[in-house]
Amino acid sequence: MANSRELEALRKISLKRSACPVASTLDIIGDKWTLLIVRDLAFGKTRYNEFRRSDEDIPTNVLADRLRRLESAGLITRKPYQEKPVRYAYRLTKTGKSLGSLVAEMAKWGQMNIPGARRLSGSDDSVQR
Amino acid sequence: MANSRELEALRKISLKRSACPVASTLDIIGDKWTLLIVRDLAFGKTRYNEFRRSDEDIPTNVLADRLRRLESAGLITRKPYQEKPVRYAYRLTKTGKSLGSLVAEMAKWGQMNIPGARRLSGSDDSVQR
Repeated sequence: MANSRELEALRKISLKRSACPVASTLDIIGDKWTLLIVRDLAFGKTRYNEFRRSDEDIPTNVLADRLRRLESAGLITRKPYQEKPVRYAYRLTKTGKSLGSLVAEMAKWGQMNIPGARRLSGSDDSVQR
Repeated sequence: MANSRELEALRKISLKRSACPVASTLDIIGDKWTLLIVRDLAFGKTRYNEFRRSDEDIPTNVLADRLRRLESAGLITRKPYQEKPVRYAYRLTKTGKSLGSLVAEMAKWGQMNIPGARRLSGSDDSVQR
């Protein structure tokens, strides 16, 4: 379970449309990009430029927006790893890490049902839970 | 596995951004509404007005668009159940039904992590797999 600040943030962002747990989850991660950033974080990427280099070529403005949203939902933390210019390292919180099983389930569905989808990069063991 | 028409449709719609199975799946169901319709279908709803009556109050234009997209992705079928005016019943295909585990995983995450999210309507046993 998350700490109280994270819980408060999650409460504010979800429960917008209904109290259904599927709708509430989709209020947070229901878009084309957010779970790709979670995927990258789960595989150990931490920096802006690393997310940018992923195959999907995420637009910079979308990346910046989704990182902000993930942080305010309490799913990632941001800490400077250098000054002048300041650069941040992003990491999944405990709650953020718990999205790993959703990403894995999505990968499984894609592999089984979409012709041409490859296996998830690296072995499943390399996902940091 | 799906039939060849469904496979062809899925191939066309996904694999847009990369061959990653997560990205490919998100190309199909990565939005705030699609999985809510899948949830309703999994619980036995089949008609436009039934989807409209769900708590989230889906806008009619969004509902019509997502039903069209789900059909062209081979995840649902549409069959008339009355004439004059013609009305359609929507049902999950075999591939569509396989999204059930993703919806269940999402419900589980919401219930565990979002304070105030209720249990998924009905017992989990009532989901038609």
